[in-house]
Amino acid sequence: MAATQKIIIDTDPGQDDAVAILLALASPELEVLGITAVAGNVPLHLTEKNARKVCELAGKLDTKVFAGAIRPMVRPLVTAEHVHGKTGLDGPDLPEPTMKLQEQHAVDFIVETLMKEEPGAVTLCPLGPLTNIALALVREPQIAKRIKQIVLMGGGFFEGGNITPAAEFNIYVDPHAADVVFRSGVPIVMMPLDVTHKALTTAKRVDAFRKMGTKVGDATAELLDFFERFDEEKYGTDGGPLHDPCVIAYLIKPELFKGRHCNVEIELGSELTLGMTVIDWWSVTARQKNATVMRDIDHDGFFGLLAERLARL
Amino acid sequence: MAATQKIIIDTDPGQDDAVAILLALASPELEVLGITAVAGNVPLHLTEKNARKVCELAGKLDTKVFAGAIRPMVRPLVTAEHVHGKTGLDGPDLPEPTMKLQEQHAVDFIVETLMKEEPGAVTLCPLGPLTNIALALVREPQIAKRIKQIVLMGGGFFEGGNITPAAEFNIYVDPHAADVVFRSGVPIVMMPLDVTHKALTTAKRVDAFRKMGTKVGDATAELLDFFERFDEEKYGTDGGPLHDPCVIAYLIKPELFKGRHCNVEIELGSELTLGMTVIDWWSVTARQKNATVMRDIDHDGFFGLLAERLARL
Amino acid sequence: MAATQKIIIDTDPGQDDAVAILLALASPELEVLGITAVAGNVPLHLTEKNARKVCELAGKLDTKVFAGAIRPMVRPLVTAEHVHGKTGLDGPDLPEPTMKLQEQHAVDFIVETLMKEEPGAVTLCPLGPLTNIALALVREPQIAKRIKQIVLMGGGFFEGGNITPAAEFNIYVDPHAADVVFRSGVPIVMMPLDVTHKALTTAKRVDAFRKMGTKVGDATAELLDFFERFDEEKYGTDGGPLHDPCVIAYLIKPELFKGRHCNVEIELGSELTLGMTVIDWWSVTARQKNATVMRDIDHDGFFGLLAERLARL
Amino acid sequence: MAATQKIIIDTDPGQDDAVAILLALASPELEVLGITAVAGNVPLHLTEKNARKVCELAGKLDTKVFAGAIRPMVRPLVTAEHVHGKTGLDGPDLPEPTMKLQEQHAVDFIVETLMKEEPGAVTLCPLGPLTNIALALVREPQIAKRIKQIVLMGGGFFEGGNITPAAEFNIYVDPHAADVVFRSGVPIVMMPLDVTHKALTTAKRVDAFRKMGTKVGDATAELLDFFERFDEEKYGTDGGPLHDPCVIAYLIKPELFKGRHCNVEIELGSELTLGMTVIDWWSVTARQKNATVMRDIDHDGFFGLLAERLARL
Repeated sequence: MAATQKIIIDTDPGQDDAVAILLALASPELEVLGITAVAGNVPLHLTEKNARKVCELAGKLDTKVFAGAIRPMVRPLVTAEHVHGKTGLDGPDLPEPTMKLQEQHAVDFIVETLMKEEPGAVTLCPLGPLTNIALALVREPQIAKRIKQIVLMGGGFFEGGNITPAAEFNIYVDPHAADVVFRSGVPIVMMPLDVTHKALTTAKRVDAFRKMGTKVGDATAELLDFFERFDEEKYGTDGGPLHDPCVIAYLIKPELFKGRHCNVEIELGSELTLGMTVIDWWSVTARQKNATVMRDIDHDGFFGLLAERLARL
Repeated sequence: MAATQKIIIDTDPGQDDAVAILLALASPELEVLGITAVAGNVPLHLTEKNARKVCELAGKLDTKVFAGAIRPMVRPLVTAEHVHGKTGLDGPDLPEPTMKLQEQHAVDFIVETLMKEEPGAVTLCPLGPLTNIALALVREPQIAKRIKQIVLMGGGFFEGGNITPAAEFNIYVDPHAADVVFRSGVPIVMMPLDVTHKALTTAKRVDAFRKMGTKVGDATAELLDFFERFDEEKYGTDGGPLHDPCVIAYLIKPELFKGRHCNVEIELGSELTLGMTVIDWWSVTARQKNATVMRDIDHDGFFGLLAERLARL
Repeated sequence: MAATQKIIIDTDPGQDDAVAILLALASPELEVLGITAVAGNVPLHLTEKNARKVCELAGKLDTKVFAGAIRPMVRPLVTAEHVHGKTGLDGPDLPEPTMKLQEQHAVDFIVETLMKEEPGAVTLCPLGPLTNIALALVREPQIAKRIKQIVLMGGGFFEGGNITPAAEFNIYVDPHAADVVFRSGVPIVMMPLDVTHKALTTAKRVDAFRKMGTKVGDATAELLDFFERFDEEKYGTDGGPLHDPCVIAYLIKPELFKGRHCNVEIELGSELTLGMTVIDWWSVTARQKNATVMRDIDHDGFFGLLAERLARL
Repeated sequence: MAATQKIIIDTDPGQDDAVAILLALASPELEVLGITAVAGNVPLHLTEKNARKVCELAGKLDTKVFAGAIRPMVRPLVTAEHVHGKTGLDGPDLPEPTMKLQEQHAVDFIVETLMKEEPGAVTLCPLGPLTNIALALVREPQIAKRIKQIVLMGGGFFEGGNITPAAEFNIYVDPHAADVVFRSGVPIVMMPLDVTHKALTTAKRVDAFRKMGTKVGDATAELLDFFERFDEEKYGTDGGPLHDPCVIAYLIKPELFKGRHCNVEIELGSELTLGMTVIDWWSVTARQKNATVMRDIDHDGFFGLLAERLARL
């Protein structure tokens, strides 16, 4: 049997982040060394609390949760309460967490962990703006060679953006951090809107969680019910895209996804396209390939995995 | 019966431009006031000659052909011989034209025609870089209110670009001209790669032209055979996208196309995304809507129309 | 004796443009082939009229005046009535001109003249935004090799800008035109704010014009009295900078000026510094030198020349 | 008598940084809480060592020296060995330091100190790229209200730049950090090239240090002899500009400097002018004033202060 993969989840929960965390905590293939919170969907004091709420929902009270960057590297913080609600986890009524927040700063935890663990042992799983990851790379550039890979949710190209016509929220919030990450030389697997928009939370799929008859199943259904409102109205689809769990699902069953190794550049120079992930899918430039960009998903397999795993909690 | 529509075709032939011109010259609904050549796929001395070759192929020797801008407004000229071949019309062996080029500059012809004709009488049909159109708008801003509409081939969003990851060739070659046109207030119908990539020159469709047994049918098949090479190899499809004839087909049968009225901005501020047409398809900004962007095509209807009309020549 | 220099003055009068035109018309060393008006300080219908007013003031009714570009190449027109007054020539009460405007478009006149005259015979003297010059270069790139030189007023570097912190008005109004001109390969002599701010219209110098006791002397004093108001208040100096006559003075007495052959690039990519003329005075880059940038002036000699010549009219 | 001012010197020595540190350590008005090193003129492992060498030269072995950012926030590091020599302190032969580097990271020291000291008690004195300061502001935005002021050497406007035509080295190396600092709301006093180029290390002034007959005097003369080479050759002046000590001199004798409260923006959007400090000296925009920009210096008073203080060491 394969050894467990050591991961750090960097996140700004967010309903879909919550489901991703649940999936990770439910999966024996993964050892969650820590969860690092970042400002994004909602401010940091909410994202770190939400991360703890989700750990408690999963019954994993020994998970280490760290607070990280309270703002992006250069630009002022933009949040997305219009999507996630005021708390970021609107939907279910999750109790205030009793777990303590770790005292160490998330960035320091990331650096220390990577310098302590074997080179190539740890995968970073960013589900929000890349501020914490970039700050860690700036603080200790030597971690770049020690990270196994970065599997991230962010960006979009053929699907366009969601916060502006050209930019996806996570990258837009801290495009400079994204630039640092994509130029870092670390192997990157990218889950852009192009793949997550093929993983829709249809009514039937949400019902499947509800029918589990567990606390986690109920909460997941309520999270997804709330979360899909915004995109269902916008796109007129049955269900909304389920972004962040794609990252975790890839670690467990990479065969669910198909993509291509490409050059990806982050637009920093223009307000109009700020934070766009420019993907050279067709190799029309000679720019160096720096990321595996996923574009297709076995969505039934993906939701099947989710249901099977969340049922274990 | 509806009155004929007066049009000016602005073009840089190009095999697909040639088919568009043939379609226009074959269609009684359209009165081609003139064909204005511009530098683009190949340099101006070739595009104006190619326009005349195509008029002669169609047997329309009284068509007025004008030479226009020899270079883009601000940037140096970029051409696309890698797609269109050295002459721009590689494929068939068309004879040197005997028709004379008009002495008037294309930009002056456009201005003079629009100021002479009734307001709202003339549609501009740009199939190449927008240099001539923009120079006309700069030279005589009053034409803006007299143009019925501009139906153009250019741009791309959900399909990405073709000359760079984010930019389509026509807009990329003269992004400043495109900016002038898209800010002009003239009603615009835009045929981006998003729609033209759904109009593929499959082997069967090309054969249909060949089987016409006419000079025009043969030449069209040869043009398309040559033209599709590049994109077939790049995209691995049966046939390549047939861009420019979409513009003319829309004038004849607008019901073949479906799109949305959107804001479109041209990226001028960043080398990475230069010339990108940023389309706010989902209305995530408050920017003013300035173009009807087509995204779907009845491709069978489109190729049916093409075949039916070209058979008349 | 040296042959006269053939020049075309491209201008948007403007009080200082007016004095430059007077200086040219008063100087036997110069043959003014035509004056081409452009939108800038005030709209085109005023600048072309103002040019004719000035020719009549000089008693040179056979001077050919042409109207050119009514707007910049890409951006919307910005004007400077806050400096020049509502008419552009506020100050003296000059009568409506009786001279007719030439029918030919200024851009066509520039192209035709350059293609007709001997190569190297004609100097262009732009005193306003470079729209006409750039449009001529775009329309007929072959003129580039036939222009003797372009001696222009525009830009600023060590003095900063005047319309924005970094940009001088003429270049700011049409930065794209400036970019075309500075990349054209034509020899350029540039009179930036760095030199014109050393040519101040002190009270004593203005008085000297008034004391001429001629119509031209009186009008010049009134023009300068009005014109200096704005900059005197802004900079707290005795007199304001006299920009445009520097261009003409250079043609007559180049020894009045000192400068350096440098690379000059026009900023197009950022709103903050848009239209800045980035001058590599210290050769810290390897960019190709494309302009002689003046930085010092014998201001007494300059005003002496002006007084001596204007007294002839 | 006024209380001593508590300062943190953030620096990338550099000969002129060294003289600034000596000046601070020699001045009883200042309490140097710590010296934080940053990558800039030379890489971090040299700048932190150089800082310690200078403390030992001053005989202040109890000064706390911290290593900070090893690279800029977003862009790759650019260094200036062509100015400062391979070690950054080329010139005198200073011994390897025996003082230990503090273990704490410079950014953490800055944050901790500011949160511990009284609000308004501590002045930051950045003499190099602003990476450490910006990273501290990102890590703990609450420090912004607790910093008394930031007195920094960086930028240039009327003097142009030194590393590119428009940008000064310190700001150019980390323009994103500069942007964070200038938008932070912290009171800023800025010593740009515009003022430092008026403080020339003439032969006579350098001799004055040599004639002190002290170890510090000799070393200072040797530092300046080496440092001025580059700029003397470039600018053809007697002596080069002495940048960084202006910051410290201002804290001791602010009356030596004259400037203006202005808006200052950092250019991030264009490669051509990247890192330019766009100073709205003439208030031609409505942008908020955020820095006091010095432009004049009593240079004799300045060098007099330097000589008097360095003689105390």
